[in-house]
Amino acid sequence: MHSLASLPEEDTLARRAALERQRQLTKPEGSLGRLEALAVWLASWQGREIPSLERVQALVFVGWHGIADKGYSAYPAAVTGQMLANFRAGGAAINQLSALGGAQLSVVPILEGQSTAPFDEGPAMSTACCLQAMQMGFEAVDPQAQLLVLGEMGIGNTSSAAALCTLLFDEPGELWAGAGTGLDKAGVARKADLLESVRQRVAKLNPLAILAEVGGHEIAAMAGAMIAARQARIPLLLDGFVVCAAAAVLQAINPAFTAAMVAGHRSAEMAHTRLLERLGLPPLLELGLRLGEGSGAALALPLLRAAIACHAGMATFAEAGVSDRDA
Amino acid sequence: MHSLASLPEEDTLARRAALERQRQLTKPEGSLGRLEALAVWLASWQGREIPSLERVQALVFVGWHGIADKGYSAYPAAVTGQMLANFRAGGAAINQLSALGGAQLSVVPILEGQSTAPFDEGPAMSTACCLQAMQMGFEAVDPQAQLLVLGEMGIGNTSSAAALCTLLFDEPGELWAGAGTGLDKAGVARKADLLESVRQRVAKLNPLAILAEVGGHEIAAMAGAMIAARQARIPLLLDGFVVCAAAAVLQAINPAFTAAMVAGHRSAEMAHTRLLERLGLPPLLELGLRLGEGSGAALALPLLRAAIACHAGMATFAEAGVSDRDA
Repeated sequence: MHSLASLPEEDTLARRAALERQRQLTKPEGSLGRLEALAVWLASWQGREIPSLERVQALVFVGWHGIADKGYSAYPAAVTGQMLANFRAGGAAINQLSALGGAQLSVVPILEGQSTAPFDEGPAMSTACCLQAMQMGFEAVDPQAQLLVLGEMGIGNTSSAAALCTLLFDEPGELWAGAGTGLDKAGVARKADLLESVRQRVAKLNPLAILAEVGGHEIAAMAGAMIAARQARIPLLLDGFVVCAAAAVLQAINPAFTAAMVAGHRSAEMAHTRLLERLGLPPLLELGLRLGEGSGAALALPLLRAAIACHAGMATFAEAGVSDRDA
Repeated sequence: MHSLASLPEEDTLARRAALERQRQLTKPEGSLGRLEALAVWLASWQGREIPSLERVQALVFVGWHGIADKGYSAYPAAVTGQMLANFRAGGAAINQLSALGGAQLSVVPILEGQSTAPFDEGPAMSTACCLQAMQMGFEAVDPQAQLLVLGEMGIGNTSSAAALCTLLFDEPGELWAGAGTGLDKAGVARKADLLESVRQRVAKLNPLAILAEVGGHEIAAMAGAMIAARQARIPLLLDGFVVCAAAAVLQAINPAFTAAMVAGHRSAEMAHTRLLERLGLPPLLELGLRLGEGSGAALALPLLRAAIACHAGMATFAEAGVSDRDA
């Protein structure tokens, strides 16, 4: 991994060509709403007037969390490994959604057999372990992918993501504690107390130190994958709260990271709305999902395909002999 | 067309079976958000535990409006025929979006060569003409379709739809006047005056008389198609403001009509938000489209496919050996 102070930028020529193409298509300007901007965004990162989504990679990273045994999750920690087997057998939601969206799915367990240390007591990961997990994520990215969809699984990881936000934005834990996969009100209050106690314990750290302190292996892997994607100018489709927490680590390092990202879905996890605002990424969908696995991102994939289908397939006013409004 | 006082209802056995299936899938209950309810809704109208979208019909009705020559539209009336040719040549947005969504598209001009009378002066259609257009829409529906997507094209038809709402809900015209495909502020104000003057001119009428008074041929055809769909228990995916205005005519006749409808997209047309609230239909998407043609509905089609893919393809807790939360 190279320096993150200077990042590859979008292709402004491709952006301009795509914008010009949009203006000529047989529709009132702006009438395809966000589909127009999505087509131009994909063009500018892929560096071509007409972008393509023939090669879409979906990466789901799986991690094990020490904090999962401390009673902040609705499901037992053993479910992480059970769901990994379910992903491999093709039985999970993300298997169906990535197939439907035309993405090549890889499920990558990060340091299987090792849990992070519970971060209520001390750092979740050593620096070396965090960098190792990031490197695994970095190397999992297909450098030829035209779009990367990221997802995660790990019982306990909404607690970890909430702790990341609490420390990155240095805000009270109650602003970032949510229900995860199904905590009740008392459980959410306990989680808020946990976050606040971590915030009191840990002095101000840099973003990567925060990632090691309260992150998870799969979250570090996502951060690594996001770096690899940006270095290859691969546009990124984000999923829910946990994926966005990894993005927030990178935003804290260099705010330019978010330019190559689009948020697929606003999840029902309360803190996700707050986090998307901080990232400056309005979501494409808001359908109440709160599953993770990359499900919200994969669900948004057909919208990107629709944007390209219109951009590439529609006739121009001249071709179709349709009068523009000035006619 | 038969009596509309009594309508075919959903299959409650299929609904119950689909609900039970959802409870067993390897995810926290409710974590797929609206996808869960969509799968159950499709199951209940198709009358099978696992619904299918192999045979989806997209119908786009085209109509010509006398009001289009009165300066309430951003585009000249001639664009209606030009866009019809563009649909037939495959160059419009709906051609790309229905192909991507896997819908069989038919574009049906209604009474081509005839415009409605401008409704600022008197009734747009005779009762006979309105019924003829409804019949054409009714007959266009494939009785074997598993889902019907409706769209429309007709320069001037947002004025017509706004007039329908003004009369159906008996509310001031300014609440229903919007920008259509691109009116400026002064244009919207003129449209509001038009709507209000029609409201003052026309005494309280029944819904079908209102349709004849200010509707369009393609709007009447959509109402007819909606009746045919309901009689065959075909679930309906609605598009933007104009399609929803046709639905509002039927809701005024029998409120039970909306149970078999889902709104694909909330358009940028201001009054659409108000109308969706009146219909009680929260939209699946909100991406700023304001094109019509069925584009917002076709764009939502992959979401229904995603709902079915998860419903049909996911493993159950028992199959996958995954612990449920009570384990």
